[in-house]
Amino acid sequence: MSTTKSSSAATATTMPRARPNDRSRIAKLLNPASVAVIGASDDPTRIGGRPISYMRSQGYTGKIFPVNPNRETVQGLKAYPTVAALPETPDVAIVIVPASAALESVTALAERGCAAAILFTSGFAEIGPEGAAAQAKLVEAAHAHGMRLIGPNSLGLINPCKHFYGTFATGCELAFPKAGGVAIISQSGAYGAHLMAVATANDIGLSAVILTGNEADLTVGDMLQMVVDDPDTKVIMLYSEGIKEAAGLVAGLEAARRARKPVLMMKVGRSAVGSAAAQSHTASIAGDDRVTDAVLKELGVVRVQTTEQMLDIARLATRGVYPANNTLGVITVSGGAGVIISDAADAVGLPMPEMPQASQERLLKLLPFAAPRNPVDVTAQYLNEMSLISTFTDALIAEGKYTSILGFFTYTGGVASIAPRLREQLKIARNKHPDCIFALSLMASRELIRQYEEDGFAVFEDPARAVVAIEAMGQFGRAFAKPAGLPAPIVKPVQLPSSNPS
Amino acid sequence: MSTTKSSSAATATTMPRARPNDRSRIAKLLNPASVAVIGASDDPTRIGGRPISYMRSQGYTGKIFPVNPNRETVQGLKAYPTVAALPETPDVAIVIVPASAALESVTALAERGCAAAILFTSGFAEIGPEGAAAQAKLVEAAHAHGMRLIGPNSLGLINPCKHFYGTFATGCELAFPKAGGVAIISQSGAYGAHLMAVATANDIGLSAVILTGNEADLTVGDMLQMVVDDPDTKVIMLYSEGIKEAAGLVAGLEAARRARKPVLMMKVGRSAVGSAAAQSHTASIAGDDRVTDAVLKELGVVRVQTTEQMLDIARLATRGVYPANNTLGVITVSGGAGVIISDAADAVGLPMPEMPQASQERLLKLLPFAAPRNPVDVTAQYLNEMSLISTFTDALIAEGKYTSILGFFTYTGGVASIAPRLREQLKIARNKHPDCIFALSLMASRELIRQYEEDGFAVFEDPARAVVAIEAMGQFGRAFAKPAGLPAPIVKPVQLPSSNPS
Repeated sequence: MSTTKSSSAATATTMPRARPNDRSRIAKLLNPASVAVIGASDDPTRIGGRPISYMRSQGYTGKIFPVNPNRETVQGLKAYPTVAALPETPDVAIVIVPASAALESVTALAERGCAAAILFTSGFAEIGPEGAAAQAKLVEAAHAHGMRLIGPNSLGLINPCKHFYGTFATGCELAFPKAGGVAIISQSGAYGAHLMAVATANDIGLSAVILTGNEADLTVGDMLQMVVDDPDTKVIMLYSEGIKEAAGLVAGLEAARRARKPVLMMKVGRSAVGSAAAQSHTASIAGDDRVTDAVLKELGVVRVQTTEQMLDIARLATRGVYPANNTLGVITVSGGAGVIISDAADAVGLPMPEMPQASQERLLKLLPFAAPRNPVDVTAQYLNEMSLISTFTDALIAEGKYTSILGFFTYTGGVASIAPRLREQLKIARNKHPDCIFALSLMASRELIRQYEEDGFAVFEDPARAVVAIEAMGQFGRAFAKPAGLPAPIVKPVQLPSSNPS
Repeated sequence: MSTTKSSSAATATTMPRARPNDRSRIAKLLNPASVAVIGASDDPTRIGGRPISYMRSQGYTGKIFPVNPNRETVQGLKAYPTVAALPETPDVAIVIVPASAALESVTALAERGCAAAILFTSGFAEIGPEGAAAQAKLVEAAHAHGMRLIGPNSLGLINPCKHFYGTFATGCELAFPKAGGVAIISQSGAYGAHLMAVATANDIGLSAVILTGNEADLTVGDMLQMVVDDPDTKVIMLYSEGIKEAAGLVAGLEAARRARKPVLMMKVGRSAVGSAAAQSHTASIAGDDRVTDAVLKELGVVRVQTTEQMLDIARLATRGVYPANNTLGVITVSGGAGVIISDAADAVGLPMPEMPQASQERLLKLLPFAAPRNPVDVTAQYLNEMSLISTFTDALIAEGKYTSILGFFTYTGGVASIAPRLREQLKIARNKHPDCIFALSLMASRELIRQYEEDGFAVFEDPARAVVAIEAMGQFGRAFAKPAGLPAPIVKPVQLPSSNPS
């Protein structure tokens, strides 16, 4: 949890495009071959001890160099008294020293040639003008040698795919995140860590968790570019409390759109929100939230109101199907659920066209009691004739041409006497049509839900939540189908002295 | 799952108030001392076998009389060839015979003096005019002796508090419902059974599950009165696809309001919904959904759009606190979450007044980095000084006078190194103020969440969902505070022949 309530740490000028070496330096933050921990603690529960403890327990395979002038070893690893004493230049450093010692550490790391540092240290721009001045000096010292910074006042950065834990967020301790395709970028450390914990509790794998801190150097826009460049990241969740650098944000979002990586954004404080549209280069971007909405929509960003929505949509988005002309076909074993789903689709503007007349007649011949229109209701008869499930679902996709299918099977999807036969029938339809979005609303054990997910279905307990997530896939699809019309992505480069060879 | 897609089984006239013996007969449906199962099967997986199998496995303590002319025993119980052969008059009968044999069974049961019957049998009003005529005869035969009916074409009725399973809904098999204070009344059998399964999966205890079927005799309004009369029921969840008998529904809802039993209603098919306001006595009540909304609001009913909302609100409502002037005070360890919660409260119109100035100054003296306004942010400092939690929460309730408190603690509420101390501090504040609504947004193991719930907190993973549920308590509070201005509750009585002594 950060004690920051607001921060004025802003970048006030437009930057030219980053040079390639900046991009590769920044990329090391997510995948360092070696990490120095400046201010490392032997106590694994302390802030200075957690990154090493987490990395070792989770199997980070890079080198770890603890720096601590008072100890021979730290958590069993050889410790070094200074940055200068390190046996090699680390790719990345984690800085945990007090504010008063931060400049010395950053200078030493930059001079040593370290690519990037993550600054946990607080007491900078978030405490007032004096802190902001000290923060500017950190950036200056880093940039003098081309080093890039996350923070200060950051809870850190995690890459679960590489088991890299540059963080002191205790959110890991409830359950370590599993590797996956969803990146989190959060301007609130506490909320970002919360999001990580909720994603993990809901079996959503993560590719990155980046807690921005004061954004003295790298801003949200740069971090977007970082995860766009990251091959493991398929989907991006962004939590924003205030846009500090609009041009970079817009460029990062446009880079994500071009790379077909969906961005979900929770932008809080809706009543007094900055506007990216203004393209303002001042620290505080005033504006109308509706303008922000319009710009984000143009860039294909889906704005969410709740964490639950964010996770629902992200989970479905990792399946990589984004139909520009999204339509929903529903197969249900309850007429009531069919009506609930129709109401929910209507509320979010997701079209549910009727099945073709000939198909309806054919289905009625197979099952006179069925409702064949859409929602297609197979009634309780499927319990006696399970093949109705694959026949009717196949008809929905092949003849109704729906891009998205939602099947409502409630607890019958989890009951031992029904679930295996149901799953078999659903798999037949799924395997025939691997390219459609296929969500199920059912209840089952966590293990069985995992099996349905492995079969290619996205499982939701609540059908209305499935509808909201399915609709979002169309929003992404429409944005991805547009030609690139916006400025090329940028990463703010470091202005190196001309003498610097890098 | 019912094969019914619609039903024209309607009661077309206003009925005078029920006589006391009707109410007591109807009450037996939820708490029968003895049950006859007409068409009982020895196979516990068949429709005719499930009620007996469920009751015996769950510990129903009343007598069970299987009726089956072809067997000496059914599932190990002595079987009887006919209703006439039963050793005593059963309180309630479950009728599972084919449609062609239903009238004979109902007549025999009514003549025997049975109080009420639950008719699983389908093939009546839901299949057309001929079925409707046969259905009318069932009602006539029952009423001739004062017997009341649920169904036909009903999935049945369950009382988890009495372990009575008059149902063939396989939804039980995933996990049998636990006893509690929430009643379900559903016009869709499949969706009602789904709701039961979801409630059970989410640890919400149930007092009744009533799946209405065709409502040939007892309608939704009567069933509302039934659960209002039931001492175990504290909160009522109602799923409606169409209002068949408006006066009875309104009377049932008003009875619930007077009894201070919150009613949550999911009324689907919003675009073409009937209107209770019309007070029409015709079978099909046409009307504007906005009128329905207005009438339901007047009666204190909270309309929900999703199952998840229904369960969230029901769970909080079982705590029995309904403040007419509801205000929200928030304590958080994340400024970001505080903003999300403020946005969510604003969206649903739940007021979050500021803390009094003097209190804010006092809190800032205790913790200079705190945000004392509301949301009150204790920052990460609580990790070092856990007593801040009880001090600040106590200040919110005692000085801010909020009727509802929401605490955001994310994964720290579940992490072993923090949770026990946090829980202790929260309990101090809770015990000082037992009368306020107190919700927590945190993540923990199911067992630990259960402990928080036992401490008196309602736990939500998503803070926005907590806000929606808290706001609903105010809606109930305002409705309960109003004087009774609507017609007294009615239950349609049976017009007995004057010769009948009952």
